[in-house]
Amino acid sequence: MEAIIARQPFQLGEGQKFEKVSREVPTPGAHDILVKVHVTGVNPVDTKMRQAPLNVDARVLGFDAAGVVEAVGDAVTDFKAGDRVYYSGSNQRDGSNQTYQLVNENYLAHMPKTLSFAEAAALPLTAITAYETLFDVFNISPNPQENEGKTLFIINGAGGVGSIATQIAKAYGLTVITTASRPETKAWSEKMGADVVLNHKEDLVKQFDAQNLACPNYIFCTYDTDHYYDVMIDLVQPRGHIATIVAFNHKQDLNALKQKSVTFTHEFMFARTIHGVDEWMYRKYLEDVTAKVDAGQYQTTLNAVLTGLTPENVLKAHEMMEGQSHIGKLVIEIVE
Amino acid sequence: MEAIIARQPFQLGEGQKFEKVSREVPTPGAHDILVKVHVTGVNPVDTKMRQAPLNVDARVLGFDAAGVVEAVGDAVTDFKAGDRVYYSGSNQRDGSNQTYQLVNENYLAHMPKTLSFAEAAALPLTAITAYETLFDVFNISPNPQENEGKTLFIINGAGGVGSIATQIAKAYGLTVITTASRPETKAWSEKMGADVVLNHKEDLVKQFDAQNLACPNYIFCTYDTDHYYDVMIDLVQPRGHIATIVAFNHKQDLNALKQKSVTFTHEFMFARTIHGVDEWMYRKYLEDVTAKVDAGQYQTTLNAVLTGLTPENVLKAHEMMEGQSHIGKLVIEIVE
Repeated sequence: MEAIIARQPFQLGEGQKFEKVSREVPTPGAHDILVKVHVTGVNPVDTKMRQAPLNVDARVLGFDAAGVVEAVGDAVTDFKAGDRVYYSGSNQRDGSNQTYQLVNENYLAHMPKTLSFAEAAALPLTAITAYETLFDVFNISPNPQENEGKTLFIINGAGGVGSIATQIAKAYGLTVITTASRPETKAWSEKMGADVVLNHKEDLVKQFDAQNLACPNYIFCTYDTDHYYDVMIDLVQPRGHIATIVAFNHKQDLNALKQKSVTFTHEFMFARTIHGVDEWMYRKYLEDVTAKVDAGQYQTTLNAVLTGLTPENVLKAHEMMEGQSHIGKLVIEIVE
Repeated sequence: MEAIIARQPFQLGEGQKFEKVSREVPTPGAHDILVKVHVTGVNPVDTKMRQAPLNVDARVLGFDAAGVVEAVGDAVTDFKAGDRVYYSGSNQRDGSNQTYQLVNENYLAHMPKTLSFAEAAALPLTAITAYETLFDVFNISPNPQENEGKTLFIINGAGGVGSIATQIAKAYGLTVITTASRPETKAWSEKMGADVVLNHKEDLVKQFDAQNLACPNYIFCTYDTDHYYDVMIDLVQPRGHIATIVAFNHKQDLNALKQKSVTFTHEFMFARTIHGVDEWMYRKYLEDVTAKVDAGQYQTTLNAVLTGLTPENVLKAHEMMEGQSHIGKLVIEIVE
């Protein structure tokens, strides 16, 4: 089997440091599943981890995948060889930029029957992030009728997380307002189901006023949290809830939350992995994605495919992620 | 009627600026209730408002009271003259440091039959704050059985809010760990129902370890949030929730919330008043307090009574609040 590794942290300006190596196909532990990876996905977290210190000799990035079960550990009962599966995986183990990968059974689900491997691999990390934000953070109801009349405002609706969060929120009864700034990102966000798309390059408060939009109950920031911190607090409903997935560059005034008694969460989908808490939730959320995709309620957020698991393609994918103008999701096809 | 007013913001070191004035008894609007105030309560918020700029000629502080309904507005149906009521009130209107007060019907409830006016007046502001924190912020279940096995950690268990929050959390099935540092505050917090009382003058993480205490699901800070910010994040369960009622003195690193995907709320009970959002919740929570007190589940948190609505007593009460070593609650009796 083959894997794309990096032996040191690096910046894109330093040139190519990814390399392809041959490895032995690993043997699954009791709760592991060995997957033949057909498609690996790329996310902003790959670019952050690429630059972070290594605590192993070589690391394999890639935290989205779809593939076929090759073998299962002795304790695994819900999957068998030949099953088509998808998953994000764990940032505590090697990722999916390799031809075979071990994944704990709690982390994966059977992929939607109506999607290709590439279309499926686009979904797990972003969908899990969006599910956690909506259900664990915002505590929205699993009953769509109970969410009617409530509004979610997503900053950057056309990104990977924004694209699937829009669809999930709509399926669960929320009104969804997003932002975009280019004609193509606006059109994409509308395709994902946004009720209203505002322009984040212009004054957001004025746009809410001009369009008579109700203050959102929930705000989900997927881009430049420092920049939007004050405006989010300005916009959110009293006793509302703001979440971000983007780290701050500066310290912030938490007293700004007081007058409206606002709640703030730093959503991070690997928190369960890192701390070993309820990892079965990953599978639960992916199973709902599968059901909703096959019922025609969600569409894939895939928007670009690179072909071939090569160091060149992995580097190119990282460049595209760091360019930050990417729409929807990007994957690398390993098995054509 | 008489009221204790201040015509300017002031520090305690400036001496007495409270004065007693005579006023006309006001007439209730359609949704107002005119209350003859028997006992007025004092809270830390009084001392903060005393120092804040005025936007009126003279302000009346006092945001806890118990008394008797004197008259009701035309639209009021749930209260009548002679009813014994209690309430915190609104920071957008004159407070309870006066002999008669107008209160919107959404803000008050019939007081417990088993308590004196002084015992009842000790409860509203702190109880509403604790209910909001537990139910609106932490989203605990109204069904105690569903909260079993979950832990709330309260920093400063013997203060006004900590004292009632402990009782409410216990009544709703949570395990409660609090902090105190003196023998008398530790004994008080145990009397309020705390399962474990730690010492906040010593290393809290070490005490959790030494006593084999599970990481709390929820942490409620009622004292010096800057000081406890990092240790709260260290202690809380992954995907756990921290709330404070004490403003920060410094900016903070919100990225510290990321690794555990922690949620943070600045609870502020006047947010509903200020923004006009669901004020009926105030009454709903007070009605539950009344029911639980009369069922013997909650006890009053009253611990000190001053007698007579005088500028001297109001100033003395402010001094006691700012001393920050007060246990439980302090009230001023107007009608003996």
